[in-house]
Amino acid sequence: MGELRMVDDIKLSDGERIDELYSNQIKIIQSDNVFSFSLDAVMLADFAEIKKSKKAQIIDLCAGNGAVGLFISSKTNGKIIEVEIQEKLAEMASRSIQLNNLTDKVEMFNLDLSDATSEFGKERFDNVTVNPPYFINEKASTKNPNEHLAIARHEIKTNLQSVLKSSSELLKNGGKLFMVHRPDRLLDILNEMQTLRLAPKELQFVYPKNGRDANMILISAIKDGKSTGLKIKEPIFVYGENGEYTEQVGKMLYGK
Amino acid sequence: MGELRMVDDIKLSDGERIDELYSNQIKIIQSDNVFSFSLDAVMLADFAEIKKSKKAQIIDLCAGNGAVGLFISSKTNGKIIEVEIQEKLAEMASRSIQLNNLTDKVEMFNLDLSDATSEFGKERFDNVTVNPPYFINEKASTKNPNEHLAIARHEIKTNLQSVLKSSSELLKNGGKLFMVHRPDRLLDILNEMQTLRLAPKELQFVYPKNGRDANMILISAIKDGKSTGLKIKEPIFVYGENGEYTEQVGKMLYGK
Repeated sequence: MGELRMVDDIKLSDGERIDELYSNQIKIIQSDNVFSFSLDAVMLADFAEIKKSKKAQIIDLCAGNGAVGLFISSKTNGKIIEVEIQEKLAEMASRSIQLNNLTDKVEMFNLDLSDATSEFGKERFDNVTVNPPYFINEKASTKNPNEHLAIARHEIKTNLQSVLKSSSELLKNGGKLFMVHRPDRLLDILNEMQTLRLAPKELQFVYPKNGRDANMILISAIKDGKSTGLKIKEPIFVYGENGEYTEQVGKMLYGK
Repeated sequence: MGELRMVDDIKLSDGERIDELYSNQIKIIQSDNVFSFSLDAVMLADFAEIKKSKKAQIIDLCAGNGAVGLFISSKTNGKIIEVEIQEKLAEMASRSIQLNNLTDKVEMFNLDLSDATSEFGKERFDNVTVNPPYFINEKASTKNPNEHLAIARHEIKTNLQSVLKSSSELLKNGGKLFMVHRPDRLLDILNEMQTLRLAPKELQFVYPKNGRDANMILISAIKDGKSTGLKIKEPIFVYGENGEYTEQVGKMLYGK
């Protein structure tokens, strides 16, 4: 049994720490033994144009330790539901929601995303955000021996098609999906989206630095949107020539 | 009748001028009344990884005044065929080929690209390059009143599907296609490619300057290639902060 520590009335287990995203003062309970959010989550939250009104219904799938749902909470006056299949991560997220005093706004559900439609209802949400596992679950592939990390990174408990099918079912007509993924899955993503009534609208590519191939993509799609008018937004560079974060990424992490 | 002038034993008609791409010393007969190559052609030629060997067979479709075929001629020891449907442009290209003393290497054919397979044979080419008309031929769309320019820009005499069908038929298995197009057609391009045995391999986005949406895409595909492993190459910016061409583009235009 891990030792329990108390921080701001929140219990921390062994190996857990609290990280803060300074740009929005959100605190996230992290653990390298289980899951820590990465730049991908920060970028997804920044990319997502979340509906602002008090009536807005938002759902974050593959929520992990709840980072994305918490990061976008300052963008809306509506409600955010987070869905995570791993009990341990969902429980960490629930504590992070308390830690940020956001229990009125953000709620974590520990369930399989394929059950989200029956749990919450079809065509209910204005926005879906999702940072899904990136890697195809090939038998021969090297996975992290830590099961929590393996499930977060590889398509073990879900896959791209299931993620997009649930997203499409959960979204209202005209609702918008925001996803982060890898360039080598772009064709799969675009193909699946188009068969699932999700019209790709915006693509934004993230390059580790100028002169290098992209290693991350941000994509938005509109449920039952028009199939024309795809936009390629300005590129994002993570590191500048000096090896430090660019101003773009610095703003996402630390604010202005 | 336009006045004829003689330059390097080449006749120039009224309104025609000779422009040089300094990076490879290729001279192109241009006319704003008919067609002038643009940065798109320069970028496509730079992007295209052309087979080098003496046996290489290359074909440039929608060749216009022959710019792309001439620009890539320094990349190969093989033969380059250019195909252009507009007689006037094909004739200008033939004179440009002479002007550059490249008649042994580059040949222009004035024909419809849908006849290229019957003319040259199936699965004969190592590479296809193509800078096709970008715009869907909608009845209501505003077109250039100049027919030559309208045909070069709008899908009047051909369309994306025909271009890709011919490209696929002309390419050997494992042969590579290089195309320049617009971001708002990316979905059509990827969808059509995948139904026509062309596996998209590389995408490169061109942004007018940092902070702006992309306005051009460069795409390569392999005939009967694997459907996995799409790469997003480093972004290209046309203009820098100072409003002048970036070093990247400067090199394409003027050499080092």
